Amino acid sequence: MFDITNITDPSFLANLKYKEKEQLATDIRTFLINNIAKTGGHLASNLGIVELVIALYSVFDYQNDKFIYDVGHQCYVHKILTGRAKDFSTLRQKDGLSGYISYKESPYDVWESGHSSTSISALAGYLIAGGKSNKHKLIAVIGDSSIVNGISFEALNYLGTLKEYHPIIILNDNKMGISKSVGSLNKVFDKLRSKKVLIKSKKVLNNSLPKFITNSFHHLKRAIKGYIQHDNIFEDLGFDYYGPVDGNNIKSITKALERIKDLEGPVILHVITEKGKGYKLAEDDDIGIYHGVEPFNPKTGKPLKIKRPNIHSYSEIVCEALCRLREKEEFYVITPATKVGAQLEKFSKLYPEHLIDVGIAEEHAAVMASGLVLGGKRSIVLMYSTFSQRAYDYFLNDIARPNIPVIIGLDRAGIVGHDGSTHQGIYDIAMFSSMPNIMICEPASANEVVGLFKTALNINKPIVIRYPRRNTICDFNTLEVKETPLKWDIMHEGKKGIVIAHGPILNRLLKLIISNDLDLMLVNARLIKPIDYTMFDYLKNLNLKTLIIEEVICSGSLYDKFLELNYPNLSKINFDVDDVIPHGSIEEMLDLYGFSDQNILKEMKRLYEIR
Amino acid sequence: MFDITNITDPSFLANLKYKEKEQLATDIRTFLINNIAKTGGHLASNLGIVELVIALYSVFDYQNDKFIYDVGHQCYVHKILTGRAKDFSTLRQKDGLSGYISYKESPYDVWESGHSSTSISALAGYLIAGGKSNKHKLIAVIGDSSIVNGISFEALNYLGTLKEYHPIIILNDNKMGISKSVGSLNKVFDKLRSKKVLIKSKKVLNNSLPKFITNSFHHLKRAIKGYIQHDNIFEDLGFDYYGPVDGNNIKSITKALERIKDLEGPVILHVITEKGKGYKLAEDDDIGIYHGVEPFNPKTGKPLKIKRPNIHSYSEIVCEALCRLREKEEFYVITPATKVGAQLEKFSKLYPEHLIDVGIAEEHAAVMASGLVLGGKRSIVLMYSTFSQRAYDYFLNDIARPNIPVIIGLDRAGIVGHDGSTHQGIYDIAMFSSMPNIMICEPASANEVVGLFKTALNINKPIVIRYPRRNTICDFNTLEVKETPLKWDIMHEGKKGIVIAHGPILNRLLKLIISNDLDLMLVNARLIKPIDYTMFDYLKNLNLKTLIIEEVICSGSLYDKFLELNYPNLSKINFDVDDVIPHGSIEEMLDLYGFSDQNILKEMKRLYEIR
Repeated sequence: MFDITNITDPSFLANLKYKEKEQLATDIRTFLINNIAKTGGHLASNLGIVELVIALYSVFDYQNDKFIYDVGHQCYVHKILTGRAKDFSTLRQKDGLSGYISYKESPYDVWESGHSSTSISALAGYLIAGGKSNKHKLIAVIGDSSIVNGISFEALNYLGTLKEYHPIIILNDNKMGISKSVGSLNKVFDKLRSKKVLIKSKKVLNNSLPKFITNSFHHLKRAIKGYIQHDNIFEDLGFDYYGPVDGNNIKSITKALERIKDLEGPVILHVITEKGKGYKLAEDDDIGIYHGVEPFNPKTGKPLKIKRPNIHSYSEIVCEALCRLREKEEFYVITPATKVGAQLEKFSKLYPEHLIDVGIAEEHAAVMASGLVLGGKRSIVLMYSTFSQRAYDYFLNDIARPNIPVIIGLDRAGIVGHDGSTHQGIYDIAMFSSMPNIMICEPASANEVVGLFKTALNINKPIVIRYPRRNTICDFNTLEVKETPLKWDIMHEGKKGIVIAHGPILNRLLKLIISNDLDLMLVNARLIKPIDYTMFDYLKNLNLKTLIIEEVICSGSLYDKFLELNYPNLSKINFDVDDVIPHGSIEEMLDLYGFSDQNILKEMKRLYEIR
Repeated sequence: MFDITNITDPSFLANLKYKEKEQLATDIRTFLINNIAKTGGHLASNLGIVELVIALYSVFDYQNDKFIYDVGHQCYVHKILTGRAKDFSTLRQKDGLSGYISYKESPYDVWESGHSSTSISALAGYLIAGGKSNKHKLIAVIGDSSIVNGISFEALNYLGTLKEYHPIIILNDNKMGISKSVGSLNKVFDKLRSKKVLIKSKKVLNNSLPKFITNSFHHLKRAIKGYIQHDNIFEDLGFDYYGPVDGNNIKSITKALERIKDLEGPVILHVITEKGKGYKLAEDDDIGIYHGVEPFNPKTGKPLKIKRPNIHSYSEIVCEALCRLREKEEFYVITPATKVGAQLEKFSKLYPEHLIDVGIAEEHAAVMASGLVLGGKRSIVLMYSTFSQRAYDYFLNDIARPNIPVIIGLDRAGIVGHDGSTHQGIYDIAMFSSMPNIMICEPASANEVVGLFKTALNINKPIVIRYPRRNTICDFNTLEVKETPLKWDIMHEGKKGIVIAHGPILNRLLKLIISNDLDLMLVNARLIKPIDYTMFDYLKNLNLKTLIIEEVICSGSLYDKFLELNYPNLSKINFDVDDVIPHGSIEEMLDLYGFSDQNILKEMKRLYEIR
């Protein structure tokens, strides 16, 4: 038994035998399960990668070689081996360990990934910076679902030409992204996975062949390699492909890494791992329930937070809305690998042909949505706010500019909580408000979000519907699907001042106003672009102090629009563009940035002051 | 001889023999050369594609099948055959024919591409919209340089799985993008190009084999195909690959299209064409001089506009600056296929290892630039303002958020002129001003742009340097490289009001103020983010009417920043976010949107009015 929390760096691995490393892997898994059960976090991907990371830090020079992990989902074992196990109780908590790679936390964190698929490009940068005679190795570890994103391909296409360098790419193939991998390349992987090659390569790579043969003449190496494998897409792209090898077998993966370590030219090692390995429920999960988890009971696998009846996430409510709307009219929903995250399973089961999961491919999703509309169908492209950033140019040029009525559903708009700075949904209004033609709206309730999708299907303009990563009250039994008008509503009348907001925060604001008996007008500005000019003029004419509250950066916000239109006596609560908002619970982050009841109340009371 | 301007639609092709089509191709080429010599435009790519487009409209049902052209560089022949030759004298001129595909112009323009590499995703949308039983064909035509961009790969990865559909992709391989193709995939193409396959496939595809064989059993088809080709990356991605075939041989390409037309499943036809075909100077050009041209003398190939001494484009000046700076210190310049467009040839010749052209791969370029800095080197990523939109998420997450001091050079910022709405550089300030940490600046002169790059190399922050597609005075013999301070300057003193701007327009403003003897202060706000707070406070305290002039959209502009900081008595000249700015000369477009001397003078005079 290892005391995981006592690990300070990977140096102790040098003295361990395979058997001991197997024990270490088991202990790390137990540690991961027990800790993530308390804090929540990315479970399955980290369980799958344990032996691979142990082997990496055994074979390579962990002090000088650089390990670039794609996306943070698989970095926990790296954090443990580089001395951070003792802090795991703070994982993803305010002021605690980040759930992702973090420059601040450790000099071993050399690529602060957050969004997927950047590792190979980052590796390219490090590679060129190190020069051709660099003795230190550069290794990227990337999953089979991340490698299909466009930028990975661009990077492979570039790196494959660098024959005088030795970039090493470890393809961590667990046949899953968040859920099952999709696309043609996945079929290529399938072919490779199923080949006898696995056995052969094990034999060749792990046991018998003396090192001098694999390390000797390039031609000979190629001949051996040619024997154990077929041409494939990676070879086409200029890489020497090795594998697949069993990444959960410490001996196999160690031997494989030793053999590829000192080769010349670009190398890719295809490693098969089992996502969720060591935790039966996660091993059997091919939907992705155990990809990212809330605190759970490790015995039963059930979340600790009990799901209350009629409390649903906005994601679930949107899925329900789409199912209802689809009964009446045809439309397609395109989602880039967020079928599970955006809780679209029900729609997917009812309308499997109309739910298109394109994998991690936001750009393709956006353009395809436009093509669908041009081809005569309605389309809804549904992704997280933060991931929509990856398709900025396509939303602008291929949807907004030519005014193509695609509906863009943005889940997780606003503060996202424990995922932290790379995933905050606070930029989307700035993004989309810089594009012509496109409308932007945000619902304040379950009924409104359902209604907005219905409204969107009935208008002939591109429209963004953004909704947060929050729960709200919604009884599916009595839920009606009625259009939500694209205008502003007065939720509360008052004479001393005006509070304007969009989104679910409006309900909290209403409570604050009522419970504090404030004589304030509260306006639901659910239509953010274009604004409701009639109501705007009405409000402006009242000439009252006005507070605008928005969970986005100031740049491009509704507040800025008010300023542009010379609205007097404005104040605001929103984020400064230079705020980089860290991880922690949604409530904690909102409090930290001035969205607490206490601070909002203070600002509301200011509206009473003499003008 | 054909009267090209009399063509109304492709129906006449049905009655033509091969010989006549060859004549038609010759006549179209003559027409293209003569017209583009007058208007400017994309020459070489259109010359290359003539036979291919004639064959497409001969073999397919031009009224019902859909042709999706990637990027607009190759759409002129399509425009001619669909009845627009008569308008070619207006090409790229104000109110004239667009240089790109245009929904407004023709029902045959079904995908309004502008930026490259979207055609396959658009095809995917049309394909799903049409359904499995769609009798009409959907064809995407994409170049070998466009297909390597990430989104194309995402789309191929998706489309390859759609075995029940019949998407047709024509890979128009001219071994060039704007300049020579780069990357691993280009080497794959090289292998394919050089194979005897070309001959064999000609034989099989063009002549002897009876149709019933190729159309009969799938297995048999595969067997034939297997005989004429090898496995390659497209097969890996789920496509049936055919070719390569000679795209400039009307008979070969016609036969090839006939054979693939009715096959099942996803098909890719690899067509080799010669960029610039029929115009010797363009045929021999592998740098890209004849890719996009200004009006020229067709006999000599020389531009009509004579290059005046000491007048250079900002691109040239930046290249000169980089050459000078590189003498003193090491840095890398990364550019996505804009080595020629951004006129970086001189730097490339002097420092071939330090100019990295990654091909059309903006995302990879941005992330790699970040990796280079993390690896210990300085990096400058240089692209057009409009193309930087493709890397929004990477600039935000991988450079701005973690505060990595990458230098981002944005060429063609502001109005770009004849390329029109898809290429305007008016969004970059909105984009980058929504990102933390990053600085944004714009030079007003040659000296300033040179100095800003020097300054940028000496600071430890990410910084955007944007400069326009314009010429300015600059004598390289006397040019000094001195730091340009990141602050605002008063260019002219005055007491009646203040005019603030950034960029080369300042020189015009100065002339206007002086020649009209206006008592106005003129401020060069070259630092757009963060602003120069000292000067801002000084100006604000003057309490004078202030006009801000910016060649960008209002959202996220300096004007918005002034509003946020409660600067009183502001007026502005900039673009509304809903302005979709068409093609025409830069001057015409500036006039149209209020940037004419006349209108600016009117606005300046307003500053004299009583407050």
